[in-house]
Amino acid sequence: MKKLMNDPNQVVKDMLAGMVAAHFNQIKRLPDTTVIVRKDAPIQGKVGLVSGGGSGHEPAHAGYVGKGMLDGAVCGEVFTSPTPDQIFEAIKAVDSGKGVLLIIKNYTGDIMNFEMAAEMAEAEGIKVAKVVVNDDVAVEDSTYTTGRRGIAGTVFVHKIAGALAEQGATLEEVEAVANKVVKNVRSMGMALTPCIVPAAGKPGFELGENEIEIGIGIHGEPGIEKTQIQPADEIVQILLGKILDDLKLENNDKVAVMINGLGATPLMELYIMNKKISEILKEKNIHVHETFVGEFMTSLEMAGCSISLLKLDDQLIELLDAQADTIVFKK
Amino acid sequence: MKKLMNDPNQVVKDMLAGMVAAHFNQIKRLPDTTVIVRKDAPIQGKVGLVSGGGSGHEPAHAGYVGKGMLDGAVCGEVFTSPTPDQIFEAIKAVDSGKGVLLIIKNYTGDIMNFEMAAEMAEAEGIKVAKVVVNDDVAVEDSTYTTGRRGIAGTVFVHKIAGALAEQGATLEEVEAVANKVVKNVRSMGMALTPCIVPAAGKPGFELGENEIEIGIGIHGEPGIEKTQIQPADEIVQILLGKILDDLKLENNDKVAVMINGLGATPLMELYIMNKKISEILKEKNIHVHETFVGEFMTSLEMAGCSISLLKLDDQLIELLDAQADTIVFKK
Repeated sequence: MKKLMNDPNQVVKDMLAGMVAAHFNQIKRLPDTTVIVRKDAPIQGKVGLVSGGGSGHEPAHAGYVGKGMLDGAVCGEVFTSPTPDQIFEAIKAVDSGKGVLLIIKNYTGDIMNFEMAAEMAEAEGIKVAKVVVNDDVAVEDSTYTTGRRGIAGTVFVHKIAGALAEQGATLEEVEAVANKVVKNVRSMGMALTPCIVPAAGKPGFELGENEIEIGIGIHGEPGIEKTQIQPADEIVQILLGKILDDLKLENNDKVAVMINGLGATPLMELYIMNKKISEILKEKNIHVHETFVGEFMTSLEMAGCSISLLKLDDQLIELLDAQADTIVFKK
Repeated sequence: MKKLMNDPNQVVKDMLAGMVAAHFNQIKRLPDTTVIVRKDAPIQGKVGLVSGGGSGHEPAHAGYVGKGMLDGAVCGEVFTSPTPDQIFEAIKAVDSGKGVLLIIKNYTGDIMNFEMAAEMAEAEGIKVAKVVVNDDVAVEDSTYTTGRRGIAGTVFVHKIAGALAEQGATLEEVEAVANKVVKNVRSMGMALTPCIVPAAGKPGFELGENEIEIGIGIHGEPGIEKTQIQPADEIVQILLGKILDDLKLENNDKVAVMINGLGATPLMELYIMNKKISEILKEKNIHVHETFVGEFMTSLEMAGCSISLLKLDDQLIELLDAQADTIVFKK
């Protein structure tokens, strides 16, 4: 295992120190926690948004802390859910009295710990709402989930719910738009190589020299099938085909597209994927409002990508286009 | 070789098609070329900025085409200089009559081809100025250079010269500030793994299981030494030490820092690097105005990173902070 690190057991702590040192104008770390919040939190008159999960998916989620997206992100150990007490600290730090929305990716550990934290907060009189993101159409139940997994589509929830919260909407309104995004977003991924959790020191799974895995999860959870490497155009057809089967778009529908690198895949390859994606959507007369290409929710140094499609209406377009100023996402 | 591509010989063409499909609101491709320009080029009353080089370094350079940075980027084959005729097309497309600045990374092929293109443009009455970036302090001469190589510090030249051009400055003024950035910026990189040029099909060099290379170039050119993997803090001391030896900063100097991932290195590891970088600069009483962490100039899927330091004065701070709206860089 070759990684730029000091102690494999200190990677999250060291990362957070380096992150706060880099972006001290925008974020702060709550003392003695792994919680990153906006420097100006809590924002008066604004619903607070908290997300989080295991680390190793950077820039998710701390990279989305800032104006127009998240107020706080809770960073667990690598690929490990953060504990309820850490989530509770985040909730307290971002609540201005208007309530807090928890944006949770659908993993059993995350669900349990965010729910416990919500109960702790409610016991202290903080209004809390929860939205569970389950955008991954690859498999129904999986290693760490009941139901579908939450993956890169979660970033659309951060963006859109964050934009509405920034306008001063109520907790119920922000929760409703977050649920609308969840209802309208679908994703699916694939990997060319595994990744190594630092404390484990070896890959979490194996792929042969010419083998890829379709439908893999962002922690390396098994997908649909292992297969031989195929041309990018054919991989697009498999991933986008399954997304389109599920999302049931109609002629003239508008979408946002996200092509998300899992860590080691060059931008060049993501753009090559988009060539075929854009062709297929054009053929189907589906209008692409915006395409996001880059690393939005990674799996350490896994090679591979996911595709996400978000079906848009006028409200979602306005909120997707709204200003955002976070560490990694600016509009 | 496992890559998301169709034909190894078509990767640049396919990438550009996917890029234009993704960002058609901001950029266009000149017909029958590998040149990407701002959709609204040429901008009246504004000096045009053109950069480019071999592909495989994405988001450099096409990702920086947009308001406040580049007007055009010329994309060669992977790790191969673009030809003079392509560069000439870019110059013609972005010239509004106020002249064009060419920002060239110091590689023998790039220098020769950009100079030939400049002569072709001047023969047609277009004013052209050239600035050569040579920020890499690792080695003096190298495989493809006479003198130091140009690497990630080039992005600071795009940003700052682009901001001044956007204000309506003359070609001479934009050239002068670009040269000031070149004078004030230093970089150095290291790699943990090699990368594979698609058309070659195998790694350009070898590194052992626990081996890294210090001072490597962005095409895998040999650096200072191959050594065993070391803790991130020690790698920072080597890279930053050599940069600081060369840049000769003084007490209270202000800098911008860039920690650039070469392709396969997770953001987590780049932030771990920044922990030590920020500590060393603080000890030396050097003030960090802004830290940029991410992938700015890559080497396909190489694992590793480079550090860049730009010494700032009031003019450079104002231009660094100015608005920018490109595909990947927004301020």
